[in-house]
Amino acid sequence: MEKLELNKAFMLIEPGPVTMISTRGMDGRANVFTLTWITVLDWTPRFALCTGPWNYSYEALVHRKECVVNIVTADMLETALDVGTCSGRDSDKFGKFDIETHDASRVDVPLLSGCWAQVECRVVDHISAHNIFVLEGVAAWQNHAHKDKRLLHAIGDGTFTADGETFHRRARMGAKLPPGV
Amino acid sequence: MEKLELNKAFMLIEPGPVTMISTRGMDGRANVFTLTWITVLDWTPRFALCTGPWNYSYEALVHRKECVVNIVTADMLETALDVGTCSGRDSDKFGKFDIETHDASRVDVPLLSGCWAQVECRVVDHISAHNIFVLEGVAAWQNHAHKDKRLLHAIGDGTFTADGETFHRRARMGAKLPPGV
Repeated sequence: MEKLELNKAFMLIEPGPVTMISTRGMDGRANVFTLTWITVLDWTPRFALCTGPWNYSYEALVHRKECVVNIVTADMLETALDVGTCSGRDSDKFGKFDIETHDASRVDVPLLSGCWAQVECRVVDHISAHNIFVLEGVAAWQNHAHKDKRLLHAIGDGTFTADGETFHRRARMGAKLPPGV
Repeated sequence: MEKLELNKAFMLIEPGPVTMISTRGMDGRANVFTLTWITVLDWTPRFALCTGPWNYSYEALVHRKECVVNIVTADMLETALDVGTCSGRDSDKFGKFDIETHDASRVDVPLLSGCWAQVECRVVDHISAHNIFVLEGVAAWQNHAHKDKRLLHAIGDGTFTADGETFHRRARMGAKLPPGV
């Protein structure tokens, strides 16, 4: 794992990938859930993560105000499905699905070691009327040796797509790009 | 253009595509801007669109409270770049880039005829502290004859990816899928 500059963390989330969000509950137990309802707010490492009380990790987000956004690539699809189709209420998903983790640097929540990239986040606001948590990234990581870097996108009906053709339009974007990326 | 059931509209936005957002200002002029900072809130046609006062269409969203989310596919990349690299403040982007439009059914904002799909939306809340507009979809459209259906994803550094390999995991998702999709 190599450290990623925080001003580049938005680039992990702007493309709209499936993510796995790790949390730690008030009882000290860690959990992880699969989520595609997340967006960057702007070019800062601020994100809007959308989930509500139906999610077992909701209380962890409300009370401990920390999480890790683990970016899912195509090779991790089956793990994301495992994680996304059961609840932490009655499962230790890490043990059940043999998911390797390691400690984060700035939050007390495990990182998923098998993921290509991770963003450690603090919850800085909760707009409960719309089930939006506002996150601020406080550290970001990327495993440059990770082989399959194709982000995964959820259609919502059980279909997923992986990144295919790439288009380089840096020169066209010019002054519209934020500094340092 | 064929009507898309509103309960399926989230499936256009959940995968995290580049979009072009059309609006109409207080002076009656329509505008369009390119945006990837958008997420579904849940399975309803409710979305969080993130933009701030730096955007010429901000005032239109605040005061007229309507927009259309036009979904961008790979064949529309150059148009999305044209639209995204100039401002409606000093350009009529529709004329300048020869962008075809037609009237929406429920909002007074033009739809981009060349896009694969469009969601007509009302702004139902504005969380100005975080530059989040909460949208509610009121009508949705899809052009089944559109050839290139590969959604486009922005990395944020001038690189874009189009959808590649598709994975069908409907059976695995089972009861986690919302009804009717």
